Amino acid sequence: MPILSAEELRRIGQELYQRLGASPEEATTVVDLLVESNLAGHDSHGVRRLLQYVAGIRSGKIVPKAKVEIEMETAATAVLKGNWGFGHVTAVEAMKTAIQKAKEASIGIVTVYQCNHVGRLGGYPPMAACQGMVGIMSNNGHGSDLSMSPWGGVGRILPANCLAMAFPSDHEFPVALDLTTAVAAGGKVRLALERGEQIPEGWLSDAEGGSTTDPAVYVTDPRGSLLPFGGTVGHKGSGLAVVLDILSGALSPAGCSRMNAEVTGNALFVQAIQIESFKPLEEFKAEVGQFINHVKSAAPAPGFDEVMVPGERSYRTRKHRLEEGILVEDATWEQICAAARDLGVKV
Amino acid sequence: MPILSAEELRRIGQELYQRLGASPEEATTVVDLLVESNLAGHDSHGVRRLLQYVAGIRSGKIVPKAKVEIEMETAATAVLKGNWGFGHVTAVEAMKTAIQKAKEASIGIVTVYQCNHVGRLGGYPPMAACQGMVGIMSNNGHGSDLSMSPWGGVGRILPANCLAMAFPSDHEFPVALDLTTAVAAGGKVRLALERGEQIPEGWLSDAEGGSTTDPAVYVTDPRGSLLPFGGTVGHKGSGLAVVLDILSGALSPAGCSRMNAEVTGNALFVQAIQIESFKPLEEFKAEVGQFINHVKSAAPAPGFDEVMVPGERSYRTRKHRLEEGILVEDATWEQICAAARDLGVKV
Repeated sequence: MPILSAEELRRIGQELYQRLGASPEEATTVVDLLVESNLAGHDSHGVRRLLQYVAGIRSGKIVPKAKVEIEMETAATAVLKGNWGFGHVTAVEAMKTAIQKAKEASIGIVTVYQCNHVGRLGGYPPMAACQGMVGIMSNNGHGSDLSMSPWGGVGRILPANCLAMAFPSDHEFPVALDLTTAVAAGGKVRLALERGEQIPEGWLSDAEGGSTTDPAVYVTDPRGSLLPFGGTVGHKGSGLAVVLDILSGALSPAGCSRMNAEVTGNALFVQAIQIESFKPLEEFKAEVGQFINHVKSAAPAPGFDEVMVPGERSYRTRKHRLEEGILVEDATWEQICAAARDLGVKV
Repeated sequence: MPILSAEELRRIGQELYQRLGASPEEATTVVDLLVESNLAGHDSHGVRRLLQYVAGIRSGKIVPKAKVEIEMETAATAVLKGNWGFGHVTAVEAMKTAIQKAKEASIGIVTVYQCNHVGRLGGYPPMAACQGMVGIMSNNGHGSDLSMSPWGGVGRILPANCLAMAFPSDHEFPVALDLTTAVAAGGKVRLALERGEQIPEGWLSDAEGGSTTDPAVYVTDPRGSLLPFGGTVGHKGSGLAVVLDILSGALSPAGCSRMNAEVTGNALFVQAIQIESFKPLEEFKAEVGQFINHVKSAAPAPGFDEVMVPGERSYRTRKHRLEEGILVEDATWEQICAAARDLGVKV
């Protein structure tokens, strides 16, 4: 498997998308977020998605240079229409709008519709944290990505809806959560199948609600489903997926998850909270910093070297991969090279 | 174990608190919320807490008739100072303030400090749902209720911080989540010990990070701890607890969880979102309604009769218990009777 630098992957991705009609700005936005996913260690939402969006442009699902429009708004809220541009571009615009509103109204909440797949949710709330705000985001697929069974049920009823939050701290990294409500994301199951690996018990349900360790039961059989996290208390993962679906979809024209939807994409709930409306930013950061220290003061459990807080591992992985490069699966790399040859991009 | 009507429990509780100096209004607020917890099936936060707050008043920890004050505010935000009154009263005031702000500014976020234990978080967001809003709430103990180990660590570092949300629907009940980040709340472990029952594997860690089914390992040994939910992906429950701690504590003067805090209570994050700022309320309710139907359309998994959405079981339990009455543990009932005799309240 080849190891590439973040810089090289960015260049290839940006040129690919520009050859297909994307503006330099939107190509940069999308590719930066994909490469950031790899840097953070979330390869399932990294450059292996490059070709997914190439296919999206070619099929007409993704419209390069689409304009993101404000459909309705108040001082603190907005509903954005993405006009089926790159999902990443719509999501960045939504977070920027929420941040702008929070600057003026203390809080901003933005929902979106006509928004394509936005990738890793964790890429967006840190935009707010960088500006002295709390960033919160959730999503659904309003008909797409049905992959997870609800607690007590069988079959693909829910997407593995995600919740992401970020908070500035006085440490080197923000506290940043990126939580999928499935035990493991579908991308990880597909990755296991590609790598010829089994998956742990408790990730998947087969068609009858039974347990399996074979990733093919999910990847190749549409009756297999991801399980909500929680194990014996899987109602918690399932319940969280349900409320995130409503939060993301019902406040937007996109709607909640359903069967046989005519058009699908990501509905988003995007929130920024101005910290200075509650206390001086430096006090907030110091408070978060002491809390990080408190959590990390726990004695390690058997099998662990230390306790880490959300966002800490990604921060370390990013530092490491910026230096050492990013490992790209052979299959992904071959697809990227083929598309590059096809479009005259040097690799 | 005696079975009492909600009405009778309310009368006893209200008289008890009024004898101890509470106003009729605050006694009603607190006792209604306690009895609602029983009605909803959450006995661990029901009338078994009546005496906890009696003791709180007697020790001076809870100050009856304390005034809830606005410490700082913007059009959309407020920080409330509870002046150590009943936590339930402070929390109701916080949700009312958030709702009022959302009426005018589309969104309201309120944090609190000097706030005593607020009980079951799920009791508050439905106040917003009843008024055509989304209600969201989280809490921490800013030094109290340290009960849970973080992922990868041993010992009581975090409270089992909770997240509660409620959304209006066109069904008979709102969708209402009330999620503790521990596999099971400490109250359930204490209840198991009182009832002489073992608890399931995976609820608790002993002093060395090992597994146990003995509730005494937690109740009587301060080195035992609750485990974050998630099982093999317990970093999810732990991560959620960490971000809820920050959301609730760092935006308030109360602060995040820590060791050896001088004063403790509940810090709260309380949010109301005006649905009409995004779409007509009836459309939102219908969307949530169709989503409820979609989730419930799943074929039941082995061992289940049907799929339920968050809030549905509590709704049914409430209907049943309003008719059949509430079962009160002998130990709890004896304590209530003793306090009633002591204070001249008829039981």
